[in-house]
Amino acid sequence: MNVTGTNPGGNGLPKSRIETLCDGVLAIAMTLMIFNIRVPEMPREQAGSRLAGELFQLWPRFVVYVVSFVMLGIYWVGHHNQFHYIRRTDRVLLWINIVFLMFVTLIPFSTALMGQYPSQRLSVDIYAITLILVGISLYIHWWYATSSHRLVDEELDPQLITLAKRRIIRAPVILLLAVAVSFFSVKLSVILCAIVPIVYIVPGRIDRKWGLARRGDG
Amino acid sequence: MNVTGTNPGGNGLPKSRIETLCDGVLAIAMTLMIFNIRVPEMPREQAGSRLAGELFQLWPRFVVYVVSFVMLGIYWVGHHNQFHYIRRTDRVLLWINIVFLMFVTLIPFSTALMGQYPSQRLSVDIYAITLILVGISLYIHWWYATSSHRLVDEELDPQLITLAKRRIIRAPVILLLAVAVSFFSVKLSVILCAIVPIVYIVPGRIDRKWGLARRGDG
Amino acid sequence: MNVTGTNPGGNGLPKSRIETLCDGVLAIAMTLMIFNIRVPEMPREQAGSRLAGELFQLWPRFVVYVVSFVMLGIYWVGHHNQFHYIRRTDRVLLWINIVFLMFVTLIPFSTALMGQYPSQRLSVDIYAITLILVGISLYIHWWYATSSHRLVDEELDPQLITLAKRRIIRAPVILLLAVAVSFFSVKLSVILCAIVPIVYIVPGRIDRKWGLARRGDG
Amino acid sequence: MNVTGTNPGGNGLPKSRIETLCDGVLAIAMTLMIFNIRVPEMPREQAGSRLAGELFQLWPRFVVYVVSFVMLGIYWVGHHNQFHYIRRTDRVLLWINIVFLMFVTLIPFSTALMGQYPSQRLSVDIYAITLILVGISLYIHWWYATSSHRLVDEELDPQLITLAKRRIIRAPVILLLAVAVSFFSVKLSVILCAIVPIVYIVPGRIDRKWGLARRGDG
Repeated sequence: MNVTGTNPGGNGLPKSRIETLCDGVLAIAMTLMIFNIRVPEMPREQAGSRLAGELFQLWPRFVVYVVSFVMLGIYWVGHHNQFHYIRRTDRVLLWINIVFLMFVTLIPFSTALMGQYPSQRLSVDIYAITLILVGISLYIHWWYATSSHRLVDEELDPQLITLAKRRIIRAPVILLLAVAVSFFSVKLSVILCAIVPIVYIVPGRIDRKWGLARRGDG
Repeated sequence: MNVTGTNPGGNGLPKSRIETLCDGVLAIAMTLMIFNIRVPEMPREQAGSRLAGELFQLWPRFVVYVVSFVMLGIYWVGHHNQFHYIRRTDRVLLWINIVFLMFVTLIPFSTALMGQYPSQRLSVDIYAITLILVGISLYIHWWYATSSHRLVDEELDPQLITLAKRRIIRAPVILLLAVAVSFFSVKLSVILCAIVPIVYIVPGRIDRKWGLARRGDG
Repeated sequence: MNVTGTNPGGNGLPKSRIETLCDGVLAIAMTLMIFNIRVPEMPREQAGSRLAGELFQLWPRFVVYVVSFVMLGIYWVGHHNQFHYIRRTDRVLLWINIVFLMFVTLIPFSTALMGQYPSQRLSVDIYAITLILVGISLYIHWWYATSSHRLVDEELDPQLITLAKRRIIRAPVILLLAVAVSFFSVKLSVILCAIVPIVYIVPGRIDRKWGLARRGDG
Repeated sequence: MNVTGTNPGGNGLPKSRIETLCDGVLAIAMTLMIFNIRVPEMPREQAGSRLAGELFQLWPRFVVYVVSFVMLGIYWVGHHNQFHYIRRTDRVLLWINIVFLMFVTLIPFSTALMGQYPSQRLSVDIYAITLILVGISLYIHWWYATSSHRLVDEELDPQLITLAKRRIIRAPVILLLAVAVSFFSVKLSVILCAIVPIVYIVPGRIDRKWGLARRGDG
């Protein structure tokens, strides 16, 4: 039996369709968050005097928006890097993906909460915990696929597996710290959350490793 | 006449585009449901005392959310498993898909209704019936494609066809029971709805069968 | 110069990406319309007595929803049938597609308007005109691609081109009649709108023709 | 090591998945903007006398909607034209894309703001600046990919690179002028914003160039 079109080289569930679903959910979550930032309502004749002030008050929402958008971007990149190496899929991996996506879809809610009540410890904690859950499910995704080379090539470099794990776990660790810190200072906790994206944008050892592995593809 | 790009091996309508539409609609429905759970509105100075309580009251919505998300995941997997075996498409199959998608898009509405009025028999019934309609259209989809091997390979194992049918019909049957039970006890009915996803996550005979069939692909 | 991945056989803009954009916009429009039907708000303790009545009052919205969903399905099928025969794309075709999509995105607005004020002549007229605009842009799409076989194969049967044109123009004609009739009877006009999907679901001469043309592909 | 399915000819990150994410985000942004234009709420018995007037008052929103939709269409075409020539991707290009998408997702907010307060200088400025940011990130995208032929073919015509740059920069330049003009006349500024799409729809030298380059593909 042979699968045409969507799954040229695979056995097990075609990974292309899991990727499609993930791309879809992530793209929608990224795009829709902006709809939680509403244009301030006021009578048009008052807009001249009030609009600037009320728009300015939206700034915490935009900051949280940018952090969430970039985090979703990072998770999207991480997910796609994992699938670069994953050769087969199975039932368990599929369900890890669905749980991962479920946590992803909670991010717009946490973002709206954090944007609306940015000085509440509860908001920061819920926000950080949502991102932690996404990060941990991405970690489990990689752990499951690579342990005993279950769904990856036999010859996949164990060092690359370890480096990727360390990279993924970085966000949950910082965010866990943010939750702990929030008991003493909400502001410091918020700053820790905002630092997470920066940690990932800077290229690290794993990126050079990945680059090399890929340059060796051809 | 030959189709380039999107439909390499097919005759009839290209199944890849039907899959794309389904993936799109399912991904959007899954992601958008969260937007029916609104962050509670209150003056920021009251958030310290009221936020925790009002967030806590959202818990039924989150429970229903998780059940709906997982059910959509299950239907997505089921749909994609069917298309793994479907070789050709035709006009009727296309319209079964469109009806299936129409019922899928009702799930966010039913989920919002159930989340808002979780103790009303009417909410539970509408919720269960929506899921039943999706399940039945998925059943008809498989029945139509496989009866007299209409759109699948001649040599497709009849036992696999039957096992798949039994697996799909499980949700509608439990949910029909939930509707019946709701006349006596709404709580028991809600519990039955929540059980449905669990029934599917546990792997069954069909999964071993599918696994074997696929391992034999290469 | 050669394009990898997305456009194996094409010259001109790759048609696969236009198809992706169209699939995306149509899937989103189809899924999002349901979010214009809001769960009725009331205190939970009143839900027992009021919920059934207020849900029942939503019925015109659901009827319009079903009609719009099916119409979007029909336009999606029509668009994809056209691309089955279109071999090349150009700048003009791209812009016809973008205009087509712009009219498509107006459908959720017209649907919400029609669902909210179903007995207003203005609602029915705007609803019908939106669908007419989508239909006409789909007609122009086909006309542009096929006139002097601009973007289709030289040997494409002229009879098929004509039959497809006739099929596409059917909706705008009936809907134009609905607009005219609305001056005398809004109810009759609504019925005409609701008839349009039925006209398309019933297979016609063109479908047999298309079926034959495709069966001859292999 | 070889990538199956999604990245046939590439080394570096597969460009097809970046394109998928961009297509998704753009399709969603394009489709969702309409949901910021709400059907006017009024008691059904008053609809006969008030509906026409209140719908008519929405016209600035529809005008802004059309401009934003066409601009997103233009940016989508521009992005896809760039990827037509980009052969490889890297970490930096990926992040330029994510920043590009972040600015894209701000367009629905700016569009809603502009539609609601069309005569406010602040609205026009924010609207123009959002479009400028999208345009500039698209410019940087092309500049990064083509400088020293970093991610494009060695033999890519330098004249085509320059022509594409000039074409992309046109929108930010006109929009910057719109911002400057807004200090004197908001109306003139709005007109300048509305002119931008027209500048792009008219085919230019680059289009003939692109057309030629592609006709030479086969």
